[in-house]
Amino acid sequence: MQTIQYNNGKLVLLDQTLLPNTVNYVEYDNYLDVGVAIQRMVVRGAPAIGVAAAYALVLAANEYKDLSLIEFKDGMKKAIAYLAKSRPTAVNLFWALERMERLLPGEGLSKQEIIQSLEKEAREIELEDLRMNKMMGEIGQELIGPNSNVLTHCNAGALATAGFGTALGVIRAAFANGKIKRVYADETRPLLQGARLTVFELMEDGIPVTLITDNMAAYCMRQRLIDCVIVGADRIAANGDVANKIGTYGLAVLAQFHKLPFYVAAPYSTFDLNIATGDEIPIEERDYLEVRKIGKNWITPKEADVINPAFDITPAKLITAIITDQGIIKPDYQKNIKGLFSYEY
Amino acid sequence: MQTIQYNNGKLVLLDQTLLPNTVNYVEYDNYLDVGVAIQRMVVRGAPAIGVAAAYALVLAANEYKDLSLIEFKDGMKKAIAYLAKSRPTAVNLFWALERMERLLPGEGLSKQEIIQSLEKEAREIELEDLRMNKMMGEIGQELIGPNSNVLTHCNAGALATAGFGTALGVIRAAFANGKIKRVYADETRPLLQGARLTVFELMEDGIPVTLITDNMAAYCMRQRLIDCVIVGADRIAANGDVANKIGTYGLAVLAQFHKLPFYVAAPYSTFDLNIATGDEIPIEERDYLEVRKIGKNWITPKEADVINPAFDITPAKLITAIITDQGIIKPDYQKNIKGLFSYEY
Repeated sequence: MQTIQYNNGKLVLLDQTLLPNTVNYVEYDNYLDVGVAIQRMVVRGAPAIGVAAAYALVLAANEYKDLSLIEFKDGMKKAIAYLAKSRPTAVNLFWALERMERLLPGEGLSKQEIIQSLEKEAREIELEDLRMNKMMGEIGQELIGPNSNVLTHCNAGALATAGFGTALGVIRAAFANGKIKRVYADETRPLLQGARLTVFELMEDGIPVTLITDNMAAYCMRQRLIDCVIVGADRIAANGDVANKIGTYGLAVLAQFHKLPFYVAAPYSTFDLNIATGDEIPIEERDYLEVRKIGKNWITPKEADVINPAFDITPAKLITAIITDQGIIKPDYQKNIKGLFSYEY
Repeated sequence: MQTIQYNNGKLVLLDQTLLPNTVNYVEYDNYLDVGVAIQRMVVRGAPAIGVAAAYALVLAANEYKDLSLIEFKDGMKKAIAYLAKSRPTAVNLFWALERMERLLPGEGLSKQEIIQSLEKEAREIELEDLRMNKMMGEIGQELIGPNSNVLTHCNAGALATAGFGTALGVIRAAFANGKIKRVYADETRPLLQGARLTVFELMEDGIPVTLITDNMAAYCMRQRLIDCVIVGADRIAANGDVANKIGTYGLAVLAQFHKLPFYVAAPYSTFDLNIATGDEIPIEERDYLEVRKIGKNWITPKEADVINPAFDITPAKLITAIITDQGIIKPDYQKNIKGLFSYEY
C-alpha cells in the first residue's frame, strides 16, 4: 500500500480520509487538486505532504510546459505560492517547495531540462524521505528496551511519509529486533488518525497494537502498561520545541509525571532553524465540523461553539530525545540541534 | 427536561444514549428493564443511577405485591442483587439499594405499608439528591473566582443527577453569581457525554460553553484558556482518591502541571468509607464496540484490539478540594473526610 506514487505525469494518492473502511486511490493531473487534497488531508503527515507538494509542482511544470520560459517560471511561482497556503504548520511542505524553487532559475538550462530537473528532485525528495525513515528506525530503535510497550499518537507511519514512517519506523525497526511487546495507539480525535491509520498499518505488519481513546493514556501509564512514548513531528524549532498533532503536548506532560521517556522522531526536513521557539510556529485551526461531527453523525448540538487547533507545541524540556536521520539529539537542544544541522543551513 | 420521573407505578427515563439528536422518554414498569437501562446507560451519572435503582425497587415491589410476605421479601432481595450487578463503579447505586433494603424487614408493618415506605424512600432519595446538588452549588461556587473559565469532563449535570448537577451545579451557581466567563467541555470519548450532554445542558441554560476534544485540554491550559477544573465523581475512597469517568485522572495531572485548581463535586452518597484507597475501587470495563465504533460507523479495523475502562482513579494528592453537600473538604483528606462524615456511618 503506497501513499504517493508518481508516474508519467500522474500523481496517485491513497485517500487517507476513507481508510481503513475503503481503500481508494485518486489520480491527479493538476497541482490545484493536489493542493485541495493536502488541505482535505487526502494525503497527510509532514513528510508525505512535502513529497506530495514536490510532485504537485511536477504536475504544474507539465501543465505549463507549452508556455514561454518567462510565463512558465511565473506559473511555477504561482503554483508554489498556492501550495504553500494549503497547510501552515508542517515545515516539510515549505522545505520541499523551496528545494523545488531553487531549480527554477535553471542557469543555462532549457525549459525541458528544468522540467526534468524538477521531476528528478521530486523523486529524490521521495527517496530521501524513505532512506531517512529507515535510518531513523535503525538509530532510534537503540533507545527502545527489550519487551517494550510503546504509546504513539496520531499516525507517523508509512502513510505519513514516503514509506516506513518516522515514529512507526522506529517501532518497526525495534519490532524487527524483537524489542516491541505491544504498541498502544491513541485514537487521535478529531480525525482519528490513530484508530484509522496507525492501527491499520500495524495490524497489516503483524505488530501487536491496542487502540485506546485519547483520554485513556494517563490510565494506561498509571497501570504501568506503557514503557515509553514515541511520536512524530510537524515542525521543530531551533530550541527543540516540537509542533505535532493536537494531544502530543498533553502526552508529554503525562509522560514526565509518570517518569516515562518521551521521544520524537523526525528527519532533518522537519527542523526549522529559522524559528527560535515553538511559540513562533503557526498552529492550523481546522474546520469546526471536524469536531462537531464524526463521519456523518452530529455528536453535539449543531450550533455548539468549538475550537479545532490541529497541532500543539511540546516544549523541549519535556522531550527525552529527538531521533533524526543524522543521530539522536538530547538536551541541550539549542546547542545540539545547531551542532548537528549547521552544515545544512 | 427531567432525567427520571416516577408516577403511579411507571418509571420514565430520558434516553441519554440518543441525546442531543433525539429527545425520547422511555416508560418502564419492571425492574429488569431498568437494570438493562442502567447497564446500557439510558440513565447514567452516579447520583441518577442511585435514584433510578431505588425506583426500580419500587417497580419490583409492585410486581411482587400479590405474593406472600416471605415471597415478596425474597423477590425484593433478588431484585436488589440483580440491580447491584448492573454497574460496578458508582457507589451511589449500592448506597441507594442499601437504603431501600433497610426497609424490607418492616417490623410490624404490612406488605402494603412496606411498599409505601419503599416508594416514600425512593422519592426521598430523589429529592435529597436535588437538595444536595443545590447545596453543593452554593458551597462550591465560593471557590470560583470572578470571570472564570472552567473545564469540565463528562457530564456531571442535571442529566447525571435528580437535577441541577454536581460539577455543573457548582458551575450553575457560580454563573448565577456572575462568575463564569466560559465553560470548556471535554467531549469525553468513547460515549461523548461531554459533547452530547454537557454542551446540550449548558446551551439550554444559556451558559457559554466551548466543546473540545479530550486531547485539547492540555493545549487549552497552556494557552491560559482555563482557570480551574471541576468534575463529578462515581466513588470516593476514605483517603480522598476519586473514581470518575476515564480521562479525569489525566486532567488532574495536567491541572497540577499548569498550577490550576482541580475540584471534585460529589454528595455524601458518593463517598465509600469502607474502601481505604482508590486501588480497591472496581473499574468497569465496557463493551469494546464503544471504542471501535462511533454511532454506526466503524472507526478502526473491526478486529482491532482495544481496551475500554469506563473510569479511572485520581489520587487524592492531585485534588485541590472536594465540594460536598456538607462542606468543602481539603487535605488532609483521610482525616477531614472521616471528620465530616463520621456521623453518617
